[in-house]
Amino acid sequence: MINIAILGFGVVGGGVAEVITMNQEKIDAHLGEPIRVKKILDLREFPDSPYKDLVTHDDKEVFDDPEITVVVETIGGARIAYEFTKRALSLGKSVVTSNKELVATHGVELMRIAKEHNCLYLYEAAVGGGIPIIRPLHRCLAANRVVRIAGIVNGTTNYILTNMRVAGISYDEALSQAQANGYAEQNPAADVEGIDAQRKLSILSSIAMGGLYVSPEEISTTGISAITLDDINFATKIGCGIKLLAVFLNNDGCDKPATYVAPHYVSKKSMLAPVEDVFNGIIVEGNALGEAMFYGKGAGKLPTASAVVGDILEAAMPPEKNSTTKNWFAGEEGVRVTAKPEDIVVDIVVKAASGKAQALKDAFAQYDTEIVCDDSEATAIIVKKIAHKDIEAACASVDGKWLHYMA
Amino acid sequence: MINIAILGFGVVGGGVAEVITMNQEKIDAHLGEPIRVKKILDLREFPDSPYKDLVTHDDKEVFDDPEITVVVETIGGARIAYEFTKRALSLGKSVVTSNKELVATHGVELMRIAKEHNCLYLYEAAVGGGIPIIRPLHRCLAANRVVRIAGIVNGTTNYILTNMRVAGISYDEALSQAQANGYAEQNPAADVEGIDAQRKLSILSSIAMGGLYVSPEEISTTGISAITLDDINFATKIGCGIKLLAVFLNNDGCDKPATYVAPHYVSKKSMLAPVEDVFNGIIVEGNALGEAMFYGKGAGKLPTASAVVGDILEAAMPPEKNSTTKNWFAGEEGVRVTAKPEDIVVDIVVKAASGKAQALKDAFAQYDTEIVCDDSEATAIIVKKIAHKDIEAACASVDGKWLHYMA
Repeated sequence: MINIAILGFGVVGGGVAEVITMNQEKIDAHLGEPIRVKKILDLREFPDSPYKDLVTHDDKEVFDDPEITVVVETIGGARIAYEFTKRALSLGKSVVTSNKELVATHGVELMRIAKEHNCLYLYEAAVGGGIPIIRPLHRCLAANRVVRIAGIVNGTTNYILTNMRVAGISYDEALSQAQANGYAEQNPAADVEGIDAQRKLSILSSIAMGGLYVSPEEISTTGISAITLDDINFATKIGCGIKLLAVFLNNDGCDKPATYVAPHYVSKKSMLAPVEDVFNGIIVEGNALGEAMFYGKGAGKLPTASAVVGDILEAAMPPEKNSTTKNWFAGEEGVRVTAKPEDIVVDIVVKAASGKAQALKDAFAQYDTEIVCDDSEATAIIVKKIAHKDIEAACASVDGKWLHYMA
Repeated sequence: MINIAILGFGVVGGGVAEVITMNQEKIDAHLGEPIRVKKILDLREFPDSPYKDLVTHDDKEVFDDPEITVVVETIGGARIAYEFTKRALSLGKSVVTSNKELVATHGVELMRIAKEHNCLYLYEAAVGGGIPIIRPLHRCLAANRVVRIAGIVNGTTNYILTNMRVAGISYDEALSQAQANGYAEQNPAADVEGIDAQRKLSILSSIAMGGLYVSPEEISTTGISAITLDDINFATKIGCGIKLLAVFLNNDGCDKPATYVAPHYVSKKSMLAPVEDVFNGIIVEGNALGEAMFYGKGAGKLPTASAVVGDILEAAMPPEKNSTTKNWFAGEEGVRVTAKPEDIVVDIVVKAASGKAQALKDAFAQYDTEIVCDDSEATAIIVKKIAHKDIEAACASVDGKWLHYMA
């Protein structure tokens, strides 16, 4: 049995408990033994939470309990979180966090304390929310010199910039809407002035430098509060979008690597261009790999919690079992592991002759459909959730030709 | 000193030697001790290779040498590669491979042999070339149930489909061009009939199922050889592109998960839509994470070798040191780690009043520039590789407003 404690039962801390409950079976199988949340430390009460009985206000119930070997720090900030993290690590308890401010400010010291006490300080969730980026940067790219990182790492500013363009509204209006929708805080400075991105870039740059710490204070940072609707419209005109990018450059011939956070005109041809709304996208360029991009939800309760729980599993696993791959095993002899091809349910597009719109609707009347072409050349319909075995007959009835569809 | 051997000195095997030489310093630092290629086993001679002295035709020089602890298998196929892999693993030598056919066909047995002999069989390079996907699937997503994978995993077919659309040519023409450019083999069946994608999907699905092996034989597979230019043009008309996708679906309510490889109409709104040419893009959806995407070069000498070398480093590292993160360390007190902000060299867009094209060209005459707007409303120029400290004065001279630019 692995016992963990959660410090700070806010959005991410609550998500961690929820993910462990939701995927208990898979997580226990991965670990080889059961895991449970033994204590939740928070100043507040949570009378309506299913975890209310685990809540304590007494930090000694966490720190003095030798059964608790992994501590999740989801308090945020660099004050109490800093004290609690030092205390846990000094006791040999591994700490897992989503707190980018603390990692970016005190990472060197906290990692040193962890090493001295033979435990781990892990922070996959501190950058890119649920997107795996910290571990791939460390491991898969270990064979590369990282020559460039260019990332949309702050969802709030990306949401504001996307909304200004799509709705044609001013920065102030877009910020108000982001606040109303819970995507921006009442004091939005850390996001809109680029401080959050600066902290995340400090973390990514320190890893890219092989561990040589790049302080946030070194990183020249400009936010998006000066970006006007005119700027956005002009960007569209020249084939670009405006994105707040966190950039690390370490090309050949540089004396020292460059780091900065600033709004950029991003060409529509870049893989960063379609990264919209609250999504994050991070391009990593290695001198052997070339460009790779990591994309996904950079924030949110369950995505961030999924990265935290991934780290908990690493911290809880004894080193000799801590391989990055798992062995495969064969299923029952002669029995399919996956569905029969004819039973697979998919979305398709069916194309038929011009004027066949009604015939197509009739042929697929029992499905959710949408006519996507109806002109002098052809008619076509999207059909949702149809089993492979039912496709051919229905298509034949309208003399239609089909292919799979992905939205 | 870690000694490795490379079996099969073709494109990827040669790339592995090259990456180790190119990034020797970084790799040795990561590992904490030097690594060297001790032997290269191949039937051919390589008189012009800098590694010619390492080449042997005698397999005993690899297998009977106890100093060689990690073997790179870049032979391909499932015959000799299979025999050599079994032999190496049975001797306790870890094997690292880019051979998707072998992993997809004999993965269960080879991983079992590795476990029995306390060594590793690693295959990050078998899917997605240099893109980190195998390890993130295993580790970072350990806390998730994988509900969907949808990937463009074969660069050859993606290149053909992209080229048909862009150049407006037939499938046969596009295939011939791909062959002429070295992106398709003379017998292109494994690529264009979807066999390569099927093998990669077998690997991804087996991991997504927690190790329960999904044989390629179970995977319903359709290639792209029946796709016509008419199909491509029609896709464009309905707001889609055509992509060959490898799909794994394990939604709630499924009896068994579904797997298939088939051409798809992919909506322009999908993150897979901008994945063009020989690039790969793989969407992974977890029940906590939501959607994440991994993007990059799915093939090629150095990208694939970069993934192989990443696996070598894991195989060579003693388990107790094999943490996925590295500690940070502080640089010299008071000395910047990164370049001063004013010295950073960047690309920018400068926007000025209408009619200022010549003035802009003059102001930035010493740089590589491109006028991107010159109409009654405004003039704008892209300026490449300008230092921050030189921007303000040049912009002031033309009363211009600037932002960073990313191509």
